Amino acid sequence: AMDGAPPSASPAGLSVFVAVSQLLGLTLLATTGAWLGRYRGGVAWHSPLQFNAHPLCMVLGMVFLQGDALLVYRVFRHEAKRSTKALHALLHGLALVIALVGIIAVFESHRTKGIPNMYSLHSWCGMAAFVLYLLQWLLGCGFFLFPGASFSLRRQYKPQHIFFGIALFVLSIASCLLGITEMLLFKISDTYSHLVPEGVLANTLGVMLVAFGLVVGYVLTREEWKRPPLAEETALSMDFKTLTEGESPGGGS
Amino acid sequence: AMDGAPPSASPAGLSVFVAVSQLLGLTLLATTGAWLGRYRGGVAWHSPLQFNAHPLCMVLGMVFLQGDALLVYRVFRHEAKRSTKALHALLHGLALVIALVGIIAVFESHRTKGIPNMYSLHSWCGMAAFVLYLLQWLLGCGFFLFPGASFSLRRQYKPQHIFFGIALFVLSIASCLLGITEMLLFKISDTYSHLVPEGVLANTLGVMLVAFGLVVGYVLTREEWKRPPLAEETALSMDFKTLTEGESPGGGS
Repeated sequence: AMDGAPPSASPAGLSVFVAVSQLLGLTLLATTGAWLGRYRGGVAWHSPLQFNAHPLCMVLGMVFLQGDALLVYRVFRHEAKRSTKALHALLHGLALVIALVGIIAVFESHRTKGIPNMYSLHSWCGMAAFVLYLLQWLLGCGFFLFPGASFSLRRQYKPQHIFFGIALFVLSIASCLLGITEMLLFKISDTYSHLVPEGVLANTLGVMLVAFGLVVGYVLTREEWKRPPLAEETALSMDFKTLTEGESPGGGS
Repeated sequence: AMDGAPPSASPAGLSVFVAVSQLLGLTLLATTGAWLGRYRGGVAWHSPLQFNAHPLCMVLGMVFLQGDALLVYRVFRHEAKRSTKALHALLHGLALVIALVGIIAVFESHRTKGIPNMYSLHSWCGMAAFVLYLLQWLLGCGFFLFPGASFSLRRQYKPQHIFFGIALFVLSIASCLLGITEMLLFKISDTYSHLVPEGVLANTLGVMLVAFGLVVGYVLTREEWKRPPLAEETALSMDFKTLTEGESPGGGS
């Protein structure tokens, strides 16, 4: 794979899937905005509409930006690892800040309206996703971004980082689906079963959230689309492999 | 990896994770039963309690049995591939039958009570999961169980089968979470926010569903725990690899 092919070429299928993911992601945001704008009075901070900032921030931060941060190593596959890593951490950091704003929005709105917090399955799953996402980000920075962690420590942690990264992305999407269901049953419980336009629109948003997760998940897990090591990284890691690996490099697949 | 180690030994960590998954799975079933029995009047077919067969069948079929069917290649890692494959197909088949019973339960219960079908995000996600799961099972049987499909066709389809298998398992769990939220908001909407025992129990069931998905997903995706090919399979596939692969066997990770 490393010999012959021009280093700047990306697999054709990868580009198509990434393009579809971005179209889906933007449609997610537009659909969320349309739901809130058309049926829920819009979004405003110091107002009874403050709650509506919650779904918008969570879809933007915990789904779209989190998903794009995961895709960075596939999209910028021929850039230096240092810069790609920095972008990965930056996008996750931005996602966390926007998600925090979304969480503040729902807590403040509940306080104003006298609604209790943290009783529903949506709140449990969503809060778990956010707290673990923050923890994952801190651990990621500690292990991979700052110097200090040894190569062997990084190598041991990396598979866990990847697994929990994808798992938290999936849990974030599941929490959004729970939020959509809650909001529809709070707001239109008497007409939801008649397939009114608002219900169909919000259900469609849910289906698109699942589709976004599927496309991003497919790109991330497809073996041939993983980031190939650059020439200089290969030289390093080959030496390293010879020193540390008991098994033959081709085994265990 | 293939030389030296006794062929009957499983990695120690794997056994622990599989044991935890089975404990979690049985606790899932017990918790679902406890919820329905203690707070929802129990389960019975020709009665107003017919609906309650729905959550029980879906947790048993679409989560516990589907999850166990996915684990078969990890648990019976040193059995002949033919028998493991048959068990994989059988467990998925059983899961599908039980899920079908659960779907009939909700449709019949809705008909009796005059409740519309297929309007909620839960029903859309759940029905999509079931229909795609059935399709995946049929494709799996066609490609891998019956003779006819060539080696190269099987090799091309296998990564898709694995990706969509895990994705459908995740979607099934997400659909259960949506079902829990719907049921709580239908039945105890006036007390749910006071953290009443039924709400806490059902939320806990949701958290355990997520935990079951995490443990099964971790076992399935951990590279060192994948089923090692048996000696005779290796001989075959090595010849085959040399004939079909353009890349070096060690590359692309």
